[in-house]
Amino acid sequence: MPLNSNSLQMFQHIKRDVRDFINIDPLQTAGKLTQAAREALLEWGDGYSVCDYCNGVLDMIKKPPIEEFVHKALPEFLGVSEARVMNGARESKFAVMNHLAKEAEGENYVVMDAWAHYSSKVAAECAGLDVVFTKKPEKQIEPEDFKEAIEAGIQQKGKKPLLTMLTYPDGNYGNLADVKKIAQISHEYEIPVLLNGAYAVGRMPINVKKMGVDYVVGSGHKSMSACGPIGVLGVSDEERAAELFKKSQYNKNKEVALIGCTSRGAPIMTLIASFPEVYRRSQPDEWAKEVDLAQKFIKRLEDTGEFKLFGQNPHQHDLMFFEAPGFFKISEKTKNGRFFLYNELKEKKIHGIKPGLTKNFKISTYGVGKENLNFVADTFEEILRKYE
Amino acid sequence: MPLNSNSLQMFQHIKRDVRDFINIDPLQTAGKLTQAAREALLEWGDGYSVCDYCNGVLDMIKKPPIEEFVHKALPEFLGVSEARVMNGARESKFAVMNHLAKEAEGENYVVMDAWAHYSSKVAAECAGLDVVFTKKPEKQIEPEDFKEAIEAGIQQKGKKPLLTMLTYPDGNYGNLADVKKIAQISHEYEIPVLLNGAYAVGRMPINVKKMGVDYVVGSGHKSMSACGPIGVLGVSDEERAAELFKKSQYNKNKEVALIGCTSRGAPIMTLIASFPEVYRRSQPDEWAKEVDLAQKFIKRLEDTGEFKLFGQNPHQHDLMFFEAPGFFKISEKTKNGRFFLYNELKEKKIHGIKPGLTKNFKISTYGVGKENLNFVADTFEEILRKYE
Repeated sequence: MPLNSNSLQMFQHIKRDVRDFINIDPLQTAGKLTQAAREALLEWGDGYSVCDYCNGVLDMIKKPPIEEFVHKALPEFLGVSEARVMNGARESKFAVMNHLAKEAEGENYVVMDAWAHYSSKVAAECAGLDVVFTKKPEKQIEPEDFKEAIEAGIQQKGKKPLLTMLTYPDGNYGNLADVKKIAQISHEYEIPVLLNGAYAVGRMPINVKKMGVDYVVGSGHKSMSACGPIGVLGVSDEERAAELFKKSQYNKNKEVALIGCTSRGAPIMTLIASFPEVYRRSQPDEWAKEVDLAQKFIKRLEDTGEFKLFGQNPHQHDLMFFEAPGFFKISEKTKNGRFFLYNELKEKKIHGIKPGLTKNFKISTYGVGKENLNFVADTFEEILRKYE
Repeated sequence: MPLNSNSLQMFQHIKRDVRDFINIDPLQTAGKLTQAAREALLEWGDGYSVCDYCNGVLDMIKKPPIEEFVHKALPEFLGVSEARVMNGARESKFAVMNHLAKEAEGENYVVMDAWAHYSSKVAAECAGLDVVFTKKPEKQIEPEDFKEAIEAGIQQKGKKPLLTMLTYPDGNYGNLADVKKIAQISHEYEIPVLLNGAYAVGRMPINVKKMGVDYVVGSGHKSMSACGPIGVLGVSDEERAAELFKKSQYNKNKEVALIGCTSRGAPIMTLIASFPEVYRRSQPDEWAKEVDLAQKFIKRLEDTGEFKLFGQNPHQHDLMFFEAPGFFKISEKTKNGRFFLYNELKEKKIHGIKPGLTKNFKISTYGVGKENLNFVADTFEEILRKYE
């Protein structure tokens, strides 16, 4: 394209037309900024704003209280010895795997659940690691599946994996596997365990030490009401943390796995500003209310006879996957075809089911609230009636 | 720390006391958001906002025009075949080095100028690569220094380096080395060249093809008026780009070097919103005005006899390094000691020289403007007079 002041106008004043919609996309429900984060965004928006206060180590900045957040509040919140703020959950998984890969000799691999997020697989690939998956489950991932996968890995590769990774919950069905047992099995082989909590940390109670895992990653933009890209990484054991966060041979202030500094502007300030609310909402009582709302929503849809939930039922998470034969039938006969559902929902200012999906889709009820969830269920029923 | 609603109050409503100061910190001068970026920040601040419009490939989103920006405007701007938006300049350098390291056999290394930014060294370390540096120059990096370093590397390691990296300008003195000759020397050995343009791209004209380099990285938060963390990566040759940006074996939409997706929220929208202004200001005529202002500022300080510029003179960049014997003498006798300068400047709402520095410091004049630069020079003189 020719670059000039006319052609470049297209890059300014771009509106986000779904900004005020009811959003049920699982990526979005727990990433919405709090009011405090919105303030922080404007105050700290300029480029490298927090670096004005830095003496060489980003996470040791005292004012604003980044040190207090990273070295006190966050470890307490996650139940770990050491925590860091990273550029995202995927970058955190990569940091752990790249570190383990560099320390080990020869070709290596990791074991992951069959429902691992694509970013876990691509992070392994980027770290030069192969992946052995657990078998595709009928209903949910069982601890035994990990035992089988580890054994299969040892058989195939002649050595044990560097890491076991569990997606908790998985990003398609919102299933929560038995993390304690999986950690125990992995530890019997002396393999460390990483919990991918991108849909957990910031939504529900997560205590790494109680769960018995070794690493945890969370997503700021997915589940902690922060402006992305940002994530958190926790390590339960001090020694393991000291290895992962070792300093550069070239600069005694800079950690190699972080390439020195990570989130260095408004994202970290929004993460911090939202943290009081994120802490509050992810306590057991508050989470129980969200699960209750999720279950009631599921029940209402199931009662129509036109929706079938995949995955754990009674469901224990806000992320849920439905088969919707009623919508699918409509898509086969209406002139808008498979885009009818997206268009009907847009009409009602509901966003989050990808254009073209009708037969199967995932949504999230997190923080949507009883009234809006009823409106979504009403709308689904209305659409079914309209095309009857 | 105990986590509760009282203790957590410290994380909210945090003000940035230097926000409205004249800021001469080289990290900050070209990272300040434009008005359009400030708008974008609020509109797109929520978590993963742009993902509402994604069909699987972040940089192919049509509305907002991310595809147009990444695949048309940015390559044109940088003079490259392919470009990507990354999490920062350091993450871009890492992506290139990690890719080259994985493709090569055995232990490998890169050659860098002696003034390489710490993040270049740490990125190499994170990619498992050793570094051979050019010799520390008397005055500036010469093309011959690269030839010597490459030869020394071959001697020491028994093979040529995977990459040559030039910091352009270096982040201490603001010197601009002869990039064309350095690229030519490197290419004589068939070694690709990466230009670290963290202080160049977005400030001054950079055309990769004209310069003859193979990769370029830029920093959104340092020099492109974007909310960090964000950076850009350009590759001059299509074939080299296809290798670097190869897709995952697990997901045909996702590029391994990017771990799938990079900047996925407000930062990319601020980068895009500021781009028309960033394009305008980095054209030759506009850059010449900035260099002229920088030179006039240097001349004024030199005329006092109390400041000595290090590095190229006449200077060709807004980043500059001074020795200030007058300030140093004051620090030795005043009761505030070496913190007097920071405090005096704070009084005048000038920020950017680190607390405690007096004898040597670097600053940037970029975008500060004639009037403010005169005020800074006046203030320096006043301080010298005050303690006479």
